[in-house]
Amino acid sequence: MEEDLNRKLEKYYEEMVSIRHHLHMNPELSFQERETVRFIQTYYRNLNIPVRTGVGGGGIVATIEGKQPGRTVALRADFDALPIQDQKQVPYRSNVKGVMHACGHDGHTALLLVLAKALKEMENELIGNYVFIHQHAEELAPGGAKPMIEDGCLEGVDAIFGTHLWAPYPTGEIYCSPGPITAAADRFQITIKGKGGHGAEPHTTKDALVVGTEIVSLLQLITSRKINPMDSAVVSVGQFKAGNAFNIIPSEAYLEGTVRTFSTELQDFIIEEMERIVKGASTVHDCDYEFRYFKGYPPTINHEKEADYILSKAEDVVGFQHVHPLNPLMIGEDFSHYLEAVRGAFFLTGAAPANTDCPFPHHHPMFDFNEEAMLIAAKTLGYAAIGFQEWRYF
Amino acid sequence: MEEDLNRKLEKYYEEMVSIRHHLHMNPELSFQERETVRFIQTYYRNLNIPVRTGVGGGGIVATIEGKQPGRTVALRADFDALPIQDQKQVPYRSNVKGVMHACGHDGHTALLLVLAKALKEMENELIGNYVFIHQHAEELAPGGAKPMIEDGCLEGVDAIFGTHLWAPYPTGEIYCSPGPITAAADRFQITIKGKGGHGAEPHTTKDALVVGTEIVSLLQLITSRKINPMDSAVVSVGQFKAGNAFNIIPSEAYLEGTVRTFSTELQDFIIEEMERIVKGASTVHDCDYEFRYFKGYPPTINHEKEADYILSKAEDVVGFQHVHPLNPLMIGEDFSHYLEAVRGAFFLTGAAPANTDCPFPHHHPMFDFNEEAMLIAAKTLGYAAIGFQEWRYF
Amino acid sequence: MEEDLNRKLEKYYEEMVSIRHHLHMNPELSFQERETVRFIQTYYRNLNIPVRTGVGGGGIVATIEGKQPGRTVALRADFDALPIQDQKQVPYRSNVKGVMHACGHDGHTALLLVLAKALKEMENELIGNYVFIHQHAEELAPGGAKPMIEDGCLEGVDAIFGTHLWAPYPTGEIYCSPGPITAAADRFQITIKGKGGHGAEPHTTKDALVVGTEIVSLLQLITSRKINPMDSAVVSVGQFKAGNAFNIIPSEAYLEGTVRTFSTELQDFIIEEMERIVKGASTVHDCDYEFRYFKGYPPTINHEKEADYILSKAEDVVGFQHVHPLNPLMIGEDFSHYLEAVRGAFFLTGAAPANTDCPFPHHHPMFDFNEEAMLIAAKTLGYAAIGFQEWRYF
Amino acid sequence: MEEDLNRKLEKYYEEMVSIRHHLHMNPELSFQERETVRFIQTYYRNLNIPVRTGVGGGGIVATIEGKQPGRTVALRADFDALPIQDQKQVPYRSNVKGVMHACGHDGHTALLLVLAKALKEMENELIGNYVFIHQHAEELAPGGAKPMIEDGCLEGVDAIFGTHLWAPYPTGEIYCSPGPITAAADRFQITIKGKGGHGAEPHTTKDALVVGTEIVSLLQLITSRKINPMDSAVVSVGQFKAGNAFNIIPSEAYLEGTVRTFSTELQDFIIEEMERIVKGASTVHDCDYEFRYFKGYPPTINHEKEADYILSKAEDVVGFQHVHPLNPLMIGEDFSHYLEAVRGAFFLTGAAPANTDCPFPHHHPMFDFNEEAMLIAAKTLGYAAIGFQEWRYF
Repeated sequence: MEEDLNRKLEKYYEEMVSIRHHLHMNPELSFQERETVRFIQTYYRNLNIPVRTGVGGGGIVATIEGKQPGRTVALRADFDALPIQDQKQVPYRSNVKGVMHACGHDGHTALLLVLAKALKEMENELIGNYVFIHQHAEELAPGGAKPMIEDGCLEGVDAIFGTHLWAPYPTGEIYCSPGPITAAADRFQITIKGKGGHGAEPHTTKDALVVGTEIVSLLQLITSRKINPMDSAVVSVGQFKAGNAFNIIPSEAYLEGTVRTFSTELQDFIIEEMERIVKGASTVHDCDYEFRYFKGYPPTINHEKEADYILSKAEDVVGFQHVHPLNPLMIGEDFSHYLEAVRGAFFLTGAAPANTDCPFPHHHPMFDFNEEAMLIAAKTLGYAAIGFQEWRYF
Repeated sequence: MEEDLNRKLEKYYEEMVSIRHHLHMNPELSFQERETVRFIQTYYRNLNIPVRTGVGGGGIVATIEGKQPGRTVALRADFDALPIQDQKQVPYRSNVKGVMHACGHDGHTALLLVLAKALKEMENELIGNYVFIHQHAEELAPGGAKPMIEDGCLEGVDAIFGTHLWAPYPTGEIYCSPGPITAAADRFQITIKGKGGHGAEPHTTKDALVVGTEIVSLLQLITSRKINPMDSAVVSVGQFKAGNAFNIIPSEAYLEGTVRTFSTELQDFIIEEMERIVKGASTVHDCDYEFRYFKGYPPTINHEKEADYILSKAEDVVGFQHVHPLNPLMIGEDFSHYLEAVRGAFFLTGAAPANTDCPFPHHHPMFDFNEEAMLIAAKTLGYAAIGFQEWRYF
Repeated sequence: MEEDLNRKLEKYYEEMVSIRHHLHMNPELSFQERETVRFIQTYYRNLNIPVRTGVGGGGIVATIEGKQPGRTVALRADFDALPIQDQKQVPYRSNVKGVMHACGHDGHTALLLVLAKALKEMENELIGNYVFIHQHAEELAPGGAKPMIEDGCLEGVDAIFGTHLWAPYPTGEIYCSPGPITAAADRFQITIKGKGGHGAEPHTTKDALVVGTEIVSLLQLITSRKINPMDSAVVSVGQFKAGNAFNIIPSEAYLEGTVRTFSTELQDFIIEEMERIVKGASTVHDCDYEFRYFKGYPPTINHEKEADYILSKAEDVVGFQHVHPLNPLMIGEDFSHYLEAVRGAFFLTGAAPANTDCPFPHHHPMFDFNEEAMLIAAKTLGYAAIGFQEWRYF
Repeated sequence: MEEDLNRKLEKYYEEMVSIRHHLHMNPELSFQERETVRFIQTYYRNLNIPVRTGVGGGGIVATIEGKQPGRTVALRADFDALPIQDQKQVPYRSNVKGVMHACGHDGHTALLLVLAKALKEMENELIGNYVFIHQHAEELAPGGAKPMIEDGCLEGVDAIFGTHLWAPYPTGEIYCSPGPITAAADRFQITIKGKGGHGAEPHTTKDALVVGTEIVSLLQLITSRKINPMDSAVVSVGQFKAGNAFNIIPSEAYLEGTVRTFSTELQDFIIEEMERIVKGASTVHDCDYEFRYFKGYPPTINHEKEADYILSKAEDVVGFQHVHPLNPLMIGEDFSHYLEAVRGAFFLTGAAPANTDCPFPHHHPMFDFNEEAMLIAAKTLGYAAIGFQEWRYF
């Protein structure tokens, strides 16, 4: 059956590319995707595949039922774009000023649509059910995954798989590992409220600027002293604002930054330590403070056996030598929510453009990817979906 | 002769007040004083006292020559106002929106004009010469004193005296000491130039924000460790700006602050230490830096014998019990330039308004002073001027 | 052949235990092992296995040549004890005051000797050569591995394998991974040389104590800012000594600490950063410094395919479910030197004593291990040795 | 009467020197002065001056009553030596190994004894009473002044005067000022109690060493930010001890240091700030702490009018040009206790040895002073004593 699917996908590769071009030229921002939704809906209707829209607000779910009953496997693609001005010189360049598919979600959508088309054609041989989750708003917390799940998109689903086309890695290679593969990417805001005064009279003030600098220094200790050196985490301050005049000691200091972790235990531990630091430093100087912490997406934690399963399917597509363990990435990804709800795995499909040693990174105005990677990703997801019916470890 | 002067000044007290009210209602900003200059010029012309305008740009110098040759003594009053909205409810409130005599320079001018009038009437008994320096732009560095001196306002002058009406101190009291009485009030700017990057990848950056916080911490050591604890100095950071996004490590950090000292040796020492700190901290983190230091007015350092002389004359005016040593003030004052050029002394004339325990500070929108202090100041300056001819320590 | 070896090892298990007890009762410190060497030498002579002593000073190498020519595989066991007083209440407790086999090297030696005996009996079926490396002085840098290698113990060797009995992990489980598994464990010493003086006169001094505290603070930035958060490293200060009197500012501050890394690149990077920090902080305060860095054992880095090979052989011994990836340990181990010279892998054999939830850690006066783990380790090493002849990836 | 006293003192100068030599050769440590007490007692008995010994433990009080009733004025000299080995090459070098009059108290005693002798001879002309306080144990807190006062040495005393021979200042000069002239010299001890552990596992510890370094850094802020820059104070850490091994994170850090202030308000403020810092820093890291603060002698605060009075008497002795204001010294002196109990003043008598540009400082093994300064001090104290009867400001 893998061979059959393989043939079909290769046959429809041109269509995949052309869908991607269409989407690329008509990008829409997170939570504002209207035409994209219409396009996807129409595609499924034309294929006679039942489709539910407005799932969790702006998501779409399509389902193919195989001839024989079996397990239910979901595949997910996101479809939102970014507020970036496309600066590439290509025929499929974005038509929308200041909006661009600079992360490859257009490719995710194109490959999933065509994979659905191919599987629809194999309907009579299929066992079990195949759920196609087209998710809106991955780029903007709180994201589309959570409301879609709350709206039932995973009902009856036994496992879910997904991928990200990944331009920094070479086309033809696939990357996956059990355990955490993307980070919890959080935001914090600290305001120190002291007492301002004349620069020549520090003793009449509570110098919030100085308290702020101590907090920056103390925050370093979280990663250097407080967490297991075998764990990975980042605490970075991205902004420090205090004062407006050279000769006035400011009454407030404002700090903003990000925390990255790969487990909720560590995330919670760091929040606690941060609060302790901010509170302690404020106490030392008799200042007040506000500490606000915004959790982003949780870490994406691949289920162990499902990650191994993806690796074995990826071997079928690209060969043993081209399948690699995936070092966790410090970025956030709301596929994490699906993996908190059901078993599954997320993998990266290498997608570096041909003829370059140094691809533009994701979210860059010159970003692009190698479209052949879409085919590789579609095959891997497809093999995983159909093979799942007989997988012994489930 | 003191008694004569005393009587005249008391007789003209009403005029002094009315001049002050006129100036108060028509304040002009530093380096923009036009009507004030015209007013002063006219006043002297009407008295038949020779006057030179445009001295050093916008200053005025008037001179009375006594019948007998003798020493030349200068008296100085400044006449600029501040960019502050007058919020007092008084009949003589400022007529100019956003401009206000919030430091008492109107009083300085009024009392010096009337003192000149009184001395002019005593012309025939006077020995030596009396130079009345009406200085523009004291409030705004580089100030009016320096260009006026360069333009010859002190030519032939043997000694100079000046005062500041001082609302925080009680009316009826006079304050003077030998040595430093106002500070060098300087400004510095530090820019750390590192390398920005993603908040999740600190190792790819040179974190300028962190370097900036270390510099704030190291600057504290100048006053805590590097200078003699018996000396007084301040190093305060008033501004810290770095970064614009919570998840981007900034490439630059900008710090601005003030340094206050009472001697040029200490001033130069601190500049050297600051540069060493900024350079060292930048080196540790392989960052570049810019360090800019702007010297404000130098410290006002009273000449020892002249300060004692003022104290003795003040005793004649307010009595032994009402003359006090002056603890140095951390503010700047460009009278310092005159005292670098010739001998002399500067003193404070207590000017707290009646019926308040807590006068509004100078530069406050509600600032006012007790006008009787003008009379005290005029007498002290006048006694000092005429007594100076026979002073044995010159 | 695996089954044959299995039977023999089980048959000789009692002997293995009794050898271990003998060694445990007669421990010898690193570089002082005399009786242990004699014991091992005699054992091999009695088996008629050629043995070379004094290798690299105090090591022993024994070799069995199989009937057919083939690859040469080395197995290593260390045999030194520690300066710790045995506090266990067991019949085989140490007879030597203050010296104890508190790390399990007695077990390593016992299992390797008995494995050699078993293989010797299978001599006629064996292909290739089997080198038994009994290493002295693993516990004390610079260790025995380096001089043994320099003295030729790896000559002709194609691959080397070794294990550590590991009491913190459960008996019956085996742990191995490709890549780094033990750390480079280094030592550093920093001396800041300032200028002492009276506690009341900081300005006459160069306060080395303060400089030292800044260095402690700056060292935190190495792990928090300078290295990839996905890498693991530790920089810890273990000692800070400055001053002898409450009212004298000390002229020197002394810091000592440890650095742990899993790659020489990171190790060298950290050394460079440390030197930059120490130099920079000293410059800021116009102090001199001494920075000394002592590299301990390099990280033990398993060769990828050989580690996988060990995992596959371990599956044969304990079964699929009992073989695990090994999270790198922050300790040092001079097996690293062998793996820098030839291909191979090092693994941990779980050895937690029965009937305890919380085994005493290695180097503890109450340390002991489950002797059945010796049998598991011997089988795994034995299977690896004989299977190596036909291993396809070599 | 001043002239008469002057003549007598000059006549007895040789005796003064010889008494000083005798004491210098027979120094006794604080609280262990026996022979010195006997010597002083005998001297007064021979003069027929009533003397009380054992005052406050080891002090001596002698009293001369004038013919006419009047005010009672006390003069004080201390007489203890220091645990320092005399390294001078002079005939009057210390005979006691490891004990030396390295601070000039021998001179204080000699000059007061001879002054008493001179005044005794003038008994019939004297008005009022003259109390000679010979104090033990000035060098060692809690000192002799406090118990002597508690034992009544100031009963009936109207004012007290005292001096210190001061080798760093030129002989022939006298220094006094109203207000604080010596500091409160205090001691503090801080112990941080964290949790130790392996250097490779900082996350399992509470790193007391790091907390200690933060406290050092925070203590700098007291002088740089918290106190009025016009005030003088010092906070210095003299000792930092933490850890014994390079690879063990210590469980405790110990800091010791000194605080110097010129007012009890500032002293108390600093104690409060220190406690806040130590507590806050410990809280941040979840550590315990001990903070102990030992107040030394309070600041010596000269009464305003009495200091002026001493200055006027000093003019009579050394002339107007040789009398100077005294910049406060950061050292401690328990004359402070007398000035808390009654009015009075303490002054320094310049005593630099002839023929040196750079006198050895007090407490140095080579310390010596110019003995002619004893005569100057005796005259000044004597003039102050006899003139006090008619002093109008009392």
